[in-house]
Amino acid sequence: MNELFLKAIAKKPIPRTPIWMMRQAGRYLPEYRAAREKAGSFLQLCKTPELACEVTLQPIRRFGFDAAILFSDILTIPDAMNLGLTFAEGEGPRFSKKLETAADIMNLSIPDPEVELRYVPDTIRLLKKELTVPLIGFAGSPWTIASYMLEGQAPGEFKKAKGLLYQNPKLMHHLLYTLAQSITLYLRAQIEAGVDTVMLFDSWGGALTESAYHEFSFNYMQEIITQLKAHHPKTPVILFTKGSGAWLELLNTSPADVIGLDWQTSLSRARNILGQKHALQGNLDPAILRADESVIEAEVKKVLHAYGPGSGHIFNLGHGITPDIHPEKVAFLVQCVKTQSHDIMTSS
Amino acid sequence: MNELFLKAIAKKPIPRTPIWMMRQAGRYLPEYRAAREKAGSFLQLCKTPELACEVTLQPIRRFGFDAAILFSDILTIPDAMNLGLTFAEGEGPRFSKKLETAADIMNLSIPDPEVELRYVPDTIRLLKKELTVPLIGFAGSPWTIASYMLEGQAPGEFKKAKGLLYQNPKLMHHLLYTLAQSITLYLRAQIEAGVDTVMLFDSWGGALTESAYHEFSFNYMQEIITQLKAHHPKTPVILFTKGSGAWLELLNTSPADVIGLDWQTSLSRARNILGQKHALQGNLDPAILRADESVIEAEVKKVLHAYGPGSGHIFNLGHGITPDIHPEKVAFLVQCVKTQSHDIMTSS
Repeated sequence: MNELFLKAIAKKPIPRTPIWMMRQAGRYLPEYRAAREKAGSFLQLCKTPELACEVTLQPIRRFGFDAAILFSDILTIPDAMNLGLTFAEGEGPRFSKKLETAADIMNLSIPDPEVELRYVPDTIRLLKKELTVPLIGFAGSPWTIASYMLEGQAPGEFKKAKGLLYQNPKLMHHLLYTLAQSITLYLRAQIEAGVDTVMLFDSWGGALTESAYHEFSFNYMQEIITQLKAHHPKTPVILFTKGSGAWLELLNTSPADVIGLDWQTSLSRARNILGQKHALQGNLDPAILRADESVIEAEVKKVLHAYGPGSGHIFNLGHGITPDIHPEKVAFLVQCVKTQSHDIMTSS
Repeated sequence: MNELFLKAIAKKPIPRTPIWMMRQAGRYLPEYRAAREKAGSFLQLCKTPELACEVTLQPIRRFGFDAAILFSDILTIPDAMNLGLTFAEGEGPRFSKKLETAADIMNLSIPDPEVELRYVPDTIRLLKKELTVPLIGFAGSPWTIASYMLEGQAPGEFKKAKGLLYQNPKLMHHLLYTLAQSITLYLRAQIEAGVDTVMLFDSWGGALTESAYHEFSFNYMQEIITQLKAHHPKTPVILFTKGSGAWLELLNTSPADVIGLDWQTSLSRARNILGQKHALQGNLDPAILRADESVIEAEVKKVLHAYGPGSGHIFNLGHGITPDIHPEKVAFLVQCVKTQSHDIMTSS
């Protein structure tokens, strides 16, 4: 088992910086597109453990990443709540039943992860037989999932989600509390099925004011992490809020082990504020993967030097890789990070 | 002349906080929609001084804002560079000629603001005869305008703009330098025609890493502001980069008089970092204008108290008002800000 990723989280000495990539199992890979075609749809790919296992493994085989991330989606929970999730090609998620009334919210039931979401722990159990690197489980944050459930699709201006938040905060809290309970059970089931760490994706927290983020997003993630730590104290937790670079002092109060950073956040400033308590994950701008190798090399150097010497950094992009990137660029990135970080670690 | 706005910029004592709103002359107003219909198109509305003057005045008459902002668009400069700008209803800007080759960039000519952009100073001259509040002129930032010119429309993933930035930074610098020269002349002409202050809108700076923002956006705005100050030392400058809440220390090095803040940025933290050198403008989440009056009242209170007592704050939204807002909500917002800030100022 390649332990670099877990050692970096624990800030134990490591010979080089580990690397994985958000959305590393994705449309930029021809072998992924073939598996998706075989499954028939994106959601069917998530729900077929053999195929989800296969696409999880593809980027590990091809690039030698230091961690695998379960192939799944942040909207599996509302799908299991029977909101009728579909993904139209190139159009993102759509719910046939969005949350429109208070009754819609009050009547939501909490899915049993080993029943309605059984395909997820089943995929994890398959993966654990195959993997030689740590496996990352994940879930969306309550606020992020709630935004999709209220808007019925990717939130643009958050008309409905912010409408509920400001107009009826009590009902919004009920929805977020229900989701936090579901997410906690879901992540516990993932840990029990074998994942080595879990990550919370708060894709839309950055759309809020700091005080609304604190009250409606961060606090629920605190609750989830506290619950996970109570049941599984040794399983590290990664917290990623896109657009949170202005709120690092607040993030520093999180019991998460790792804070994920988008590319707008200065990694050196983040280490100053968060580095005592947390390992850091990130934060290359995915757009850089469209540039030539010499540019990628120089930008990798900037990221590694922004973190500086010592353990506690997991190299990643600042957001998911986009479908238009050539796989050779990813191979080059991985090689750059491995070589350059080895040089930094051994010279410092 | 209502001097509240200019006094707040100068941090002189004021009886209450001044307020204006980004996109205050806009589609949420029925009288604006009527004027746009009369003009035939958005761009024709910008280019017809009598009508542009009329829509600039509408929100001042209706709501009693403390400043007017010239009705225009950040893309008037590339339009004057003959890139064939159009606005399709509800679809945003489109350029028929986008920048595709190095020659396209090298051959750009700098428009004479009193010739190709004459409708702008003409509108300003008309406005100055009518207005009893200060008039704000404006321009887009070089990086923001360049992004539109390279993408040919609103940038989504900035494929072309970041492509050029990373792949051919020298050519990108040439484009930004050309735009910075154009913008400087354009804003000087606006000041000479009579505006009382100018604002730089960097709508897309927040899509960059901090170091790319510094090199490719902030530095060009520094150059523009330095040039403006050399020619018109008494005209205040407002700098607004959407998504810059993580970079306040960098913003503090700006010679701008006012820093505009989006709603994700904590106004109290911003005052701590920027408040010695700068007045601050912002930063209510525009989504709050969809909520009931009691919510608006409470959120206005939060913003006013986040800034705290004393002069130096101009109330605004954290971004432009959206077309779906009811004008009565805006009237209520203005009343709230005026009443509440008066109470704070007189009790402190």
